[in-house]
Amino acid sequence: MDGTREMKDSKQLISNIQAQYPRLSKGQKLIAQYILSNYDKVAFMTACKLGETVGVSESTVVRFANALGYSGYPKLQDALQELIKNRLTTVQRVEMANEYSDDTTILNKVLKSDIDNIRGTLEEVDEKAFEEASNKLLNARKIYILGMRSSFTVAQYLGFYLDIILDSVHIIRMDMGDAFEQIVRINENDVVVAISFPRYSKKSFEVVSYAKEKGAHVISLTDSIFAPVASIADNVLLVKSNMASFVDSLVPALSISNALIISVGMKEKEEIKEHFDDLEKIWKMYSVYE
Amino acid sequence: MDGTREMKDSKQLISNIQAQYPRLSKGQKLIAQYILSNYDKVAFMTACKLGETVGVSESTVVRFANALGYSGYPKLQDALQELIKNRLTTVQRVEMANEYSDDTTILNKVLKSDIDNIRGTLEEVDEKAFEEASNKLLNARKIYILGMRSSFTVAQYLGFYLDIILDSVHIIRMDMGDAFEQIVRINENDVVVAISFPRYSKKSFEVVSYAKEKGAHVISLTDSIFAPVASIADNVLLVKSNMASFVDSLVPALSISNALIISVGMKEKEEIKEHFDDLEKIWKMYSVYE
Amino acid sequence: MDGTREMKDSKQLISNIQAQYPRLSKGQKLIAQYILSNYDKVAFMTACKLGETVGVSESTVVRFANALGYSGYPKLQDALQELIKNRLTTVQRVEMANEYSDDTTILNKVLKSDIDNIRGTLEEVDEKAFEEASNKLLNARKIYILGMRSSFTVAQYLGFYLDIILDSVHIIRMDMGDAFEQIVRINENDVVVAISFPRYSKKSFEVVSYAKEKGAHVISLTDSIFAPVASIADNVLLVKSNMASFVDSLVPALSISNALIISVGMKEKEEIKEHFDDLEKIWKMYSVYE
Amino acid sequence: MDGTREMKDSKQLISNIQAQYPRLSKGQKLIAQYILSNYDKVAFMTACKLGETVGVSESTVVRFANALGYSGYPKLQDALQELIKNRLTTVQRVEMANEYSDDTTILNKVLKSDIDNIRGTLEEVDEKAFEEASNKLLNARKIYILGMRSSFTVAQYLGFYLDIILDSVHIIRMDMGDAFEQIVRINENDVVVAISFPRYSKKSFEVVSYAKEKGAHVISLTDSIFAPVASIADNVLLVKSNMASFVDSLVPALSISNALIISVGMKEKEEIKEHFDDLEKIWKMYSVYE
Repeated sequence: MDGTREMKDSKQLISNIQAQYPRLSKGQKLIAQYILSNYDKVAFMTACKLGETVGVSESTVVRFANALGYSGYPKLQDALQELIKNRLTTVQRVEMANEYSDDTTILNKVLKSDIDNIRGTLEEVDEKAFEEASNKLLNARKIYILGMRSSFTVAQYLGFYLDIILDSVHIIRMDMGDAFEQIVRINENDVVVAISFPRYSKKSFEVVSYAKEKGAHVISLTDSIFAPVASIADNVLLVKSNMASFVDSLVPALSISNALIISVGMKEKEEIKEHFDDLEKIWKMYSVYE
Repeated sequence: MDGTREMKDSKQLISNIQAQYPRLSKGQKLIAQYILSNYDKVAFMTACKLGETVGVSESTVVRFANALGYSGYPKLQDALQELIKNRLTTVQRVEMANEYSDDTTILNKVLKSDIDNIRGTLEEVDEKAFEEASNKLLNARKIYILGMRSSFTVAQYLGFYLDIILDSVHIIRMDMGDAFEQIVRINENDVVVAISFPRYSKKSFEVVSYAKEKGAHVISLTDSIFAPVASIADNVLLVKSNMASFVDSLVPALSISNALIISVGMKEKEEIKEHFDDLEKIWKMYSVYE
Repeated sequence: MDGTREMKDSKQLISNIQAQYPRLSKGQKLIAQYILSNYDKVAFMTACKLGETVGVSESTVVRFANALGYSGYPKLQDALQELIKNRLTTVQRVEMANEYSDDTTILNKVLKSDIDNIRGTLEEVDEKAFEEASNKLLNARKIYILGMRSSFTVAQYLGFYLDIILDSVHIIRMDMGDAFEQIVRINENDVVVAISFPRYSKKSFEVVSYAKEKGAHVISLTDSIFAPVASIADNVLLVKSNMASFVDSLVPALSISNALIISVGMKEKEEIKEHFDDLEKIWKMYSVYE
Repeated sequence: MDGTREMKDSKQLISNIQAQYPRLSKGQKLIAQYILSNYDKVAFMTACKLGETVGVSESTVVRFANALGYSGYPKLQDALQELIKNRLTTVQRVEMANEYSDDTTILNKVLKSDIDNIRGTLEEVDEKAFEEASNKLLNARKIYILGMRSSFTVAQYLGFYLDIILDSVHIIRMDMGDAFEQIVRINENDVVVAISFPRYSKKSFEVVSYAKEKGAHVISLTDSIFAPVASIADNVLLVKSNMASFVDSLVPALSISNALIISVGMKEKEEIKEHFDDLEKIWKMYSVYE
């Protein structure tokens, strides 16, 4: 599928540039350097303009795109635009949502877009990172789960279920206004799960940075290797969340959370059964459920 | 797809029985009546046992299954088991999760199962109910959003985004221990969105019942027409949440929430833009984001 | 002070009756028995009516009051009314609030009434219970803090500060609708602090009962030895909360919480210093405070 | 009482200096100017050192203290120390707590200190400000209540009870990490109640500043006219919170909250009765209370 293919390109774009770098011509190297530090501008430059800016010919720009494996400069540009999409302001994103019309169309488009998001996530996600993340969770002294704004709901979901399996879960809640106070005892036996989607909260990054500095293992559920939190995470679980609207879909982040919960759960099956055995008795005694 | 087909059957099973009822033989009518009030038992009876219990022959049972459109009694039984699956205890459900093995398999199975869940939801969901729900949200004096246990995370997600668009949103929080206190002023100009998945909370049902009695419009995101809350809802948005594990996937419920948010948002585009314009200024002034 | 004196009477009324019992006349014993199981009715009976009901003379009733140390029947009745005051419905309590008039009077009356409440609490509180409570908190594997409705705010306050000193604090939050899920792993090394004021939440009592059954040590901050939670608590910290209005003052409960925090804190001074040393550095680094 | 008297001095110290300024000698004016911008340093200087620093004689310093109404320089210094006490780091404050010894002493000292705090608050509080605050709450389109860290518990308490009386209450919760998002629609018909105690949260001040800029009426419960939030509040309700320990007592802040609740409640008595009438029925129907 084309959308997915483009996304994979965008994911690999930077490492691709770095890998090809030694083999590039002198002029192409100038382009590479410029892109690595100005990809947000390049995403909206024509080949001609980019050549002008860097001081090379337009055809050098086109050959550079080819050298990276793109059929032409427009495909490279697509990949760059994909990269920066998450940096758009929310207002710009509302403007983009014009494609939606009546409710039935919206219902169909959104659910299909979420199916694509999960499928894209499945293709992209790093299985080794997932496996390591699951094992780290299992063995952590304490698990801190962090998400801000809408990402907090995913943090709560993940925390709710992990808490059934493990006795080490702490969801970082900001309701009293301070996250640092909650992680002040964090150490190298602990794990932080940081759920971070655009627009990336500065506070989130500060908290994870502190945790990292104290030696904690950092698992990050995020949408881009360029997310601030990804740069300091030990395991990055990349999640697609595109929806061309003012809402970032957290659906695939929730689906990955399901997978983490079941993975940890399968390793602690007896614990879960015992837990639910106890709960079923309580629930029955106090008529909690219908 | 087979999984989806079976699900649709299960959905229609009850109405199917009711529709066929006049054309059934006397013996088949006895079976129909018995099933309607004892489907949870019948789901685990052989055709022979069912015949015996009702007082008809085994072949009458088989013909009854055929009359409803099933190729045989086992298919009818499948549909019944689907119906009652959500009534299983959590311990029984953990037992069912044996199919999962290594982490990569889990990752793949869970994400694919969530894709199936959304696809199934898309096939099943009532577009008219969705449209009416969206319009009711838009015009409500006050919107109360209710979810307990893991469903609370979906309530918070939906509430978080609707609150950006509308000035009428109240997420019912039980942190101080009482939901009634929060809805005591509810009236016929209000809307309740009840997110309810197995095991169905008794408290949730009590709260929605009270709201209904006070004349509020009830929108329900749930997994079954047999969910207690579905019986009193004005709009039922049916969501698949199967995962053959101790976790119910709330992924499709979140996807439907995305659709509701965008649907309401598209009708209040100017309000959103203004809202985000203001927020962007604040965020910039106080460096909230990276 | 008279108010305080009456309160002490009310506290000791029941044990007083039990202590005097052997020395009472036959007729007085009948009164004692009747009061012990019907004090809520007796509180509003005249001496004459009580005598009639029990089958003794009015003068026997008066002598009974004298035998308990009251100057007359009205004083006994006061003590009984004090006892049942917390059982009044909230509507009845709003009716009682007529004494308040202009804002300045309210301000003065309320703050003075809170001073009286703390003073009364100080006279009444069991110092041994306080000391044991403090030591149990210090040594608990896990501390669960429970309060519903307005009492939740005291639970949060106590939990916020104890969490600075100890790594074992869990505030029971009902925001996802279930308290049992949070205490399912409770055991005999754990402590529950139950903050419970009228009207006594049934849920609170169920949760504490479960904890008690599992062997946990129960500390209760409550207003009466007749509070359901007091009957199963290991340490009862009695707190005055009268305010003759629809609000129960939690001021003395907060003051007792201050005392508990400082008592535990003084035993872990090095831990607190280290904690704040770390926090001060973080706060400075991230400009959290002015 | 001496403690209270000193506190009043400290409150009036700055305005006192300003009022006396025209009548001061030239040398005394130099002292006044120096103190106004360096009171934190002066608080720990001897009269001799202060004279030296400013370039006047020690006896000029003493006469300056007399001119302000103090019996000597040490009393002026006390008042200055009172002022800066809230600026101490938490670590310094733990060091100060050495006076506490055994549990019974702690219990007595803390409760007595809270009685003094409320009494001091009662002497200090501005009755006109209280009255205006109460009326503003009564008539607000929307009431936003803000408190961070431990002050959040007072915010929740005040919000919980005001919500029983009024349909306009919104407690600002940071659990999803952003306060601005919650006040983005604030306007000149709204009221913010800001509860702010040392160490004063920067975020709190930013949020209140934004509200003020949008024309909202600001009521502040704080401990000092030097609290950042006091400088922009329309009504400052000054509260004593000294406890010479690492905990700031919020007891008097809670007592003032009680007074506000009852004041607003007395003006909406019918509303409360109706509210509780409804709730009592629900509570009975669903057996919420014992």
